[in-house]
Amino acid sequence: MKTTEVTYPEGAIKVLDKGFVRLVDVMGDDESIVQSARVSYGKGTKSVSEDEGLIRYLMRHQHTTPLEMVEFKFHCRMPIFVARQWIRHRTANVNELSARYSEMPDWFYEPKEELYTTQSAQNRQGGTGEQVAHAKEVAASFVKTQTDSYGEYERYLGLDMRRELARVNLPVSLYTEWYWKIDLHNLLNFLKLRMDSHAQYEIRVFAEAMGDIVKEKVPMAWKAFEDYSLESIRFTKLELEVLKKALKGESVNLAEHIKNKRERGECLEKFKTLGYDKITLE
Amino acid sequence: MKTTEVTYPEGAIKVLDKGFVRLVDVMGDDESIVQSARVSYGKGTKSVSEDEGLIRYLMRHQHTTPLEMVEFKFHCRMPIFVARQWIRHRTANVNELSARYSEMPDWFYEPKEELYTTQSAQNRQGGTGEQVAHAKEVAASFVKTQTDSYGEYERYLGLDMRRELARVNLPVSLYTEWYWKIDLHNLLNFLKLRMDSHAQYEIRVFAEAMGDIVKEKVPMAWKAFEDYSLESIRFTKLELEVLKKALKGESVNLAEHIKNKRERGECLEKFKTLGYDKITLE
Amino acid sequence: MKTTEVTYPEGAIKVLDKGFVRLVDVMGDDESIVQSARVSYGKGTKSVSEDEGLIRYLMRHQHTTPLEMVEFKFHCRMPIFVARQWIRHRTANVNELSARYSEMPDWFYEPKEELYTTQSAQNRQGGTGEQVAHAKEVAASFVKTQTDSYGEYERYLGLDMRRELARVNLPVSLYTEWYWKIDLHNLLNFLKLRMDSHAQYEIRVFAEAMGDIVKEKVPMAWKAFEDYSLESIRFTKLELEVLKKALKGESVNLAEHIKNKRERGECLEKFKTLGYDKITLE
Amino acid sequence: MKTTEVTYPEGAIKVLDKGFVRLVDVMGDDESIVQSARVSYGKGTKSVSEDEGLIRYLMRHQHTTPLEMVEFKFHCRMPIFVARQWIRHRTANVNELSARYSEMPDWFYEPKEELYTTQSAQNRQGGTGEQVAHAKEVAASFVKTQTDSYGEYERYLGLDMRRELARVNLPVSLYTEWYWKIDLHNLLNFLKLRMDSHAQYEIRVFAEAMGDIVKEKVPMAWKAFEDYSLESIRFTKLELEVLKKALKGESVNLAEHIKNKRERGECLEKFKTLGYDKITLE
Repeated sequence: MKTTEVTYPEGAIKVLDKGFVRLVDVMGDDESIVQSARVSYGKGTKSVSEDEGLIRYLMRHQHTTPLEMVEFKFHCRMPIFVARQWIRHRTANVNELSARYSEMPDWFYEPKEELYTTQSAQNRQGGTGEQVAHAKEVAASFVKTQTDSYGEYERYLGLDMRRELARVNLPVSLYTEWYWKIDLHNLLNFLKLRMDSHAQYEIRVFAEAMGDIVKEKVPMAWKAFEDYSLESIRFTKLELEVLKKALKGESVNLAEHIKNKRERGECLEKFKTLGYDKITLE
Repeated sequence: MKTTEVTYPEGAIKVLDKGFVRLVDVMGDDESIVQSARVSYGKGTKSVSEDEGLIRYLMRHQHTTPLEMVEFKFHCRMPIFVARQWIRHRTANVNELSARYSEMPDWFYEPKEELYTTQSAQNRQGGTGEQVAHAKEVAASFVKTQTDSYGEYERYLGLDMRRELARVNLPVSLYTEWYWKIDLHNLLNFLKLRMDSHAQYEIRVFAEAMGDIVKEKVPMAWKAFEDYSLESIRFTKLELEVLKKALKGESVNLAEHIKNKRERGECLEKFKTLGYDKITLE
Repeated sequence: MKTTEVTYPEGAIKVLDKGFVRLVDVMGDDESIVQSARVSYGKGTKSVSEDEGLIRYLMRHQHTTPLEMVEFKFHCRMPIFVARQWIRHRTANVNELSARYSEMPDWFYEPKEELYTTQSAQNRQGGTGEQVAHAKEVAASFVKTQTDSYGEYERYLGLDMRRELARVNLPVSLYTEWYWKIDLHNLLNFLKLRMDSHAQYEIRVFAEAMGDIVKEKVPMAWKAFEDYSLESIRFTKLELEVLKKALKGESVNLAEHIKNKRERGECLEKFKTLGYDKITLE
Repeated sequence: MKTTEVTYPEGAIKVLDKGFVRLVDVMGDDESIVQSARVSYGKGTKSVSEDEGLIRYLMRHQHTTPLEMVEFKFHCRMPIFVARQWIRHRTANVNELSARYSEMPDWFYEPKEELYTTQSAQNRQGGTGEQVAHAKEVAASFVKTQTDSYGEYERYLGLDMRRELARVNLPVSLYTEWYWKIDLHNLLNFLKLRMDSHAQYEIRVFAEAMGDIVKEKVPMAWKAFEDYSLESIRFTKLELEVLKKALKGESVNLAEHIKNKRERGECLEKFKTLGYDKITLE
């Protein structure tokens, strides 16, 4: 089996072992947000500090249409299973490498050894930090499965099998590539979900790389996004009752306020973050 | 000028003086949400209380795709200026009465006298509760402007002017009509924005009428929506710092935490709601 | 009543009596289409003529995702009734002047005298070329209705009425303004519909102004659009049967092939365009 | 390795070796299209034949908003590589089985022997009808690759590896499952593209199964779709020049009209379909 050298386009930021994110183009900046917002809200003053105030106001009050006036275009390479999560965000424009047209290179995602961790019992969609047994051997078997399936793929192409069928036993750890274009408002929604600690590690690192790019291109909007969204906490109606009590300095037994056990746990987490400990689960 | 009697289709819920909302059809219910969610999360148990738990979990964690599996179709009549705000929600299907094809009836929105209120100084997009001077006379002049413009419209139609042009001087207080179809997830987004106290009164009443319908059709999802979204409060990164202090029982001078004056005011409001008063604006 | 001088931003292309279209920004060009297409279809050759060949291939076969990689942002001013047709294209980003926030200037659409034409009998949504009686007087009455309603609006603002209500009797001939951003694929869909002879004249002129801009920015894509879409003709299944006969040089009685009278008329039109006259309606 | 028996929900229409399409729910029918169209076009008459005439008019003139008033919800099981093509249609609501949450069953797509065909030279994304050499052996190796990778997957789960990682070497021939909900207008767009002879066989059979369902539920709309879209032919600007000549009975050398060789071939195909043979490629 051939092993093709992994190449990267100029300006690519490497992500995972063979992936990348590359900013192809951006339309607009913080000022473009202000410019279009002023169509709605009138001319008014125009100092930089007032611009920032306006952006923060828009973000705080979820007046998001001016954010849509900035557009980012990325070129990315990621494993297919990551692409499958990513594509669920429907408001983007996508042009993906087609395995019907093109022969796929033999680039597979090989997780770092420390990522072979065990399933979390609490979180059905997450892992623990603990490694599985025999991680080194498992890592080797990952590569073997990938190499074997690619060997078969090559053999099928050698038989001149239609490409669209020859590829169907390639695993979702295979890297694919696409152009992905999205406006800032929807990009921030994507980043909020995919930078979250509940997102799978392998997509989170892509989101983080894109977050760094966005931060550089629209620093004011990014700061507002951090303050009002990313690092904010929402308290539910039930939690607000708990909060009222806590603000009076009272001890709270969560079982009296929140019926659902899982929900109680989530509430407890929030109060821990706030450094409040006069609260018990049941 | 003719004055056409205002008619309503069967099942219409009257809104404003001549508008209505009517549920034409609904696809699915609380159980449909559960049904499609179980495709993702596996079979598991199936008691009603567990169904409700699942719906609440989905809503709390913004796993919104199962909510998209319920679809509502409404038939509505509203003033054009309300339709113009409404249509900004792009995820719906719309089929509107066309003034190019059809002659428009002479149905205009005539606000109740108590709604002729003055502009708020703080809130550039809102009103106070105070009536303007000469409200009775103003109300009469509203009707006169409407009647005059409709009279002209009729005269133009009498001249056989192309309908698409004859209508251009009809005011945005004229009622229009449409079919509007949307999935539950996007409908709840719409309702959250348009039932909000910052929404214009004249669209809020439509949102409230629709909210009542939704509540009846998907009571579990609606309850979760109330608890986790409608009646929740989000605390920004800056406000969380204030909250930490408050939970220690300390007095807080907001000026030390939040630079922007307007933002301080918004923060103060939240703490008032929570009954916490050891807090000053500056 | 004040009469405000109509002003235009730099770079505005005037449309109708007081409207404009202005290109604010564009992301990408013909080459960007090629660049993203090559992600799907592989590297291949790269001469300009091959680039054009690729763009034409994409357009001909409706492989439209690479077209979505080009983005246009416009700043426009148009009458509200035009904005209402325009906004039905849901795939764009929009930020519109808000009459809740801002006082509207007294800019109304005053049609040129030759546009006061009569209703078409055949086409329920169109006009004839013939002027209505008393067109000069009608034009004057248009202005009077507009001036009167604006006078009332000013009076209400003078009473400090909430702006969001004071505006509701302003007619849909009032000019509004927005930023509008859209990708090339969806823009071409918009232009195809709105440059069509069935579109209302008053929106068609905006579409044509935008078409000129698009043509300049992506000349290859535009040419392909003209050849394969704008100036193409679709023959229905029934019309193809007629075409087969006609290609044998036979005379055709449309009534034998197409039941619906209106449809027969449409078919006849197509054959007229092709210069074929051995065809009768019934 | 276990081999799980393949099960189907009630009402499933089997597609490929282990997939299915099942209609879960439908909102509306032909009459719903008419009902919402009459909001735009006025009351008028209401016989069944007039209803059909209206639907056909709407379809012929691409007035597609009334079609959006009908909604279909499907439950489907298909190989991942088919799901990846399918999901590119962004206007649908989707809820997919998550391999992060659930253990995937060992259901893989095993193509029928006659489908192991060779790559087309002309059509870079298609196959010929000819079988590759050693098809029987190839089919066996397909199964072996699938069984091996599933064996590894099971072993990883046995080590309690986080599910989201354990699945990454499963091939795109693995079956996945989803709920998919879409309005009729967008569904017809999907079917037009995916029932086309250029679509990959493995998605085409799903489209055809859905087409049968649609045909049964909205027979008038489906007939119009066939007549005006599915079985229509579009002639480009260049081809219309050829058509004019042909209608005069003249012989045509395509090279004089169409520069691009591939495009000439496409033009020739259309004239063959029409039974016109006085035409040469060059």
